[in-house]
Amino acid sequence: MNDTFLKACRGEETDYTPIWIMRQAGRYLPEYQKVRGKVTFLELCKTPELCVEVTLQPVDILGVDAAILFSDILIPLEAMGTPLEFHEGRGPVFPEPIQNQADLDRLIIPDPDEHTGFVMETIRLLRKELQVPLIGFAGAPFTCATYLIEGGSSKVFWETKKMMYTNPELFHNMMEKITRTTTLYLLAQAKAGAQALQIFDSWAGVLAPEDFKTFALPYVQQIVSDLQETGLPIIYFANNGATLLEMAASTGADVLGLDWRINIGDAVRRVGKVALQGNLDPFALLLPKEKLKARIGRILEDAKGAHGHIFNLGHGIHQFTPPEQAKAAVEFVHELSQR
Amino acid sequence: MNDTFLKACRGEETDYTPIWIMRQAGRYLPEYQKVRGKVTFLELCKTPELCVEVTLQPVDILGVDAAILFSDILIPLEAMGTPLEFHEGRGPVFPEPIQNQADLDRLIIPDPDEHTGFVMETIRLLRKELQVPLIGFAGAPFTCATYLIEGGSSKVFWETKKMMYTNPELFHNMMEKITRTTTLYLLAQAKAGAQALQIFDSWAGVLAPEDFKTFALPYVQQIVSDLQETGLPIIYFANNGATLLEMAASTGADVLGLDWRINIGDAVRRVGKVALQGNLDPFALLLPKEKLKARIGRILEDAKGAHGHIFNLGHGIHQFTPPEQAKAAVEFVHELSQR
Repeated sequence: MNDTFLKACRGEETDYTPIWIMRQAGRYLPEYQKVRGKVTFLELCKTPELCVEVTLQPVDILGVDAAILFSDILIPLEAMGTPLEFHEGRGPVFPEPIQNQADLDRLIIPDPDEHTGFVMETIRLLRKELQVPLIGFAGAPFTCATYLIEGGSSKVFWETKKMMYTNPELFHNMMEKITRTTTLYLLAQAKAGAQALQIFDSWAGVLAPEDFKTFALPYVQQIVSDLQETGLPIIYFANNGATLLEMAASTGADVLGLDWRINIGDAVRRVGKVALQGNLDPFALLLPKEKLKARIGRILEDAKGAHGHIFNLGHGIHQFTPPEQAKAAVEFVHELSQR
Repeated sequence: MNDTFLKACRGEETDYTPIWIMRQAGRYLPEYQKVRGKVTFLELCKTPELCVEVTLQPVDILGVDAAILFSDILIPLEAMGTPLEFHEGRGPVFPEPIQNQADLDRLIIPDPDEHTGFVMETIRLLRKELQVPLIGFAGAPFTCATYLIEGGSSKVFWETKKMMYTNPELFHNMMEKITRTTTLYLLAQAKAGAQALQIFDSWAGVLAPEDFKTFALPYVQQIVSDLQETGLPIIYFANNGATLLEMAASTGADVLGLDWRINIGDAVRRVGKVALQGNLDPFALLLPKEKLKARIGRILEDAKGAHGHIFNLGHGIHQFTPPEQAKAAVEFVHELSQR
């Protein structure tokens, strides 16, 4: 069992810097495309055997130091009782967005084993196969709320901010319901066998610092606090959150994810005893090998003072990335970080 | 003549904090919609009399302390010889994106008076009408390059970064050509009567700091340096550029624009003797009046140590914003900042 990733999460000494890649089980892999070609995205998410297959692919092909459950942050939202559709090339759609308290009241706080049992089954099956740690995950409440309010993805989050600014009570009510759902969902993943838990706040970066503090941060703090009983490392990734870093650290998460917009050395200086995960620009995987190696070397060097470093990209790997470049990146990280 | 804006740009004492609003001549104003309803967007940009009319509207309606030339950052790129189309609801399209050196060689460095005379004529006409300073502007070279390479707007800038990482020589050649075009374009605006010049780096925030330093910053530094002879205040706005702030200051610009993601007090502490412009979240204009006033008050308070502060939004005003909220914001800024 390779536990380098878990040690780094806890800030313990490791023989080398572990690496995994956000969206490592994804469209850039022909092996994934083959599985995905037979089913819809939602069917894939709800079929444990297929989830296991695609989760294992990058572990075998790239040699990463952790696996992440194949699923989607919107799965528990659908379980709350709102229809979810994925349209090819358009992304997720919630055809019944939440616009008022009555809409919100119709949503339930789902029992994770009853309503998302396929996720827990995937985790149980994966633990029998894996020789590296398994990361479970969920979306952060603010990010989840944007999908429910906008009815899908958004460019500017007009409806979300409109609700925040003109009906904060409704917004907070929604955040409480999503927060409780997320906590139960992650606790169930821990019980099923997840060995670390990542909270993805993909859209935190659209908030002004004072709004993040009021409308998003308290709910992440609540979840991290409620997950302490699991004893698992918690990773919080506030995407595009360079100005939110100190607040992200205040959640009590063991690891903070960084996107590529920040120098990781600056992040080390700004946070205290917390591990950092990141932060190569995903598109830098296109660099010629020698330049890629040099760039990875600079990140490893800059991260040296960190209380634990897990190498990763600053965002999900792009679908047009050649898999051999991702494989090379994994090898460079391992080679350059040998202690 | 109200010169409060120009004084603030230079870090001089003012009686109150001046304000203007990015995209203040825009779709949120029924008066603008009326003009725009009669012509296409490009026709509007190329008809000085209509540009004058819409440029003046927010000065009269909102009472802002500066006017900004109505135009588009893509105008000088079209003048370089590449076709430009605007499709309703889809944004700008360059149907012949730059993919290789031959494509680039076909572009010219246009004579701004000959190829964009309508812009200079607009400036001359506006100066006869205005009682507040007139801001001219252009896109920063990196931002302009993304449009030429992607063939329009982009979400992830795959093609741009692909060129940067796999063909840096071509990328730098393109940046040099755009930089020279931009310098000549802004010098012509100064000669026509612009009283301050803003450089919009709308997409700077997609770059890792080391890439910004290599691929974008030197060209902005070149432009700012070449504009010194005009004696006009230069404003550089690197959107989503919280981690690039010190480098932005190194351009030599007199004023740095800030988006809403950063606390302006933190920005004051990080930059030296440079004025700051910003930075209310545009959607915060939806706040009830009392809360809007309090929020504006906090920004004014946080900005107090700045070497000059020009109030603005952190991004362009959104098309669904009620104009009376924008008007209220202008009044609050003036009222709360009286010295």
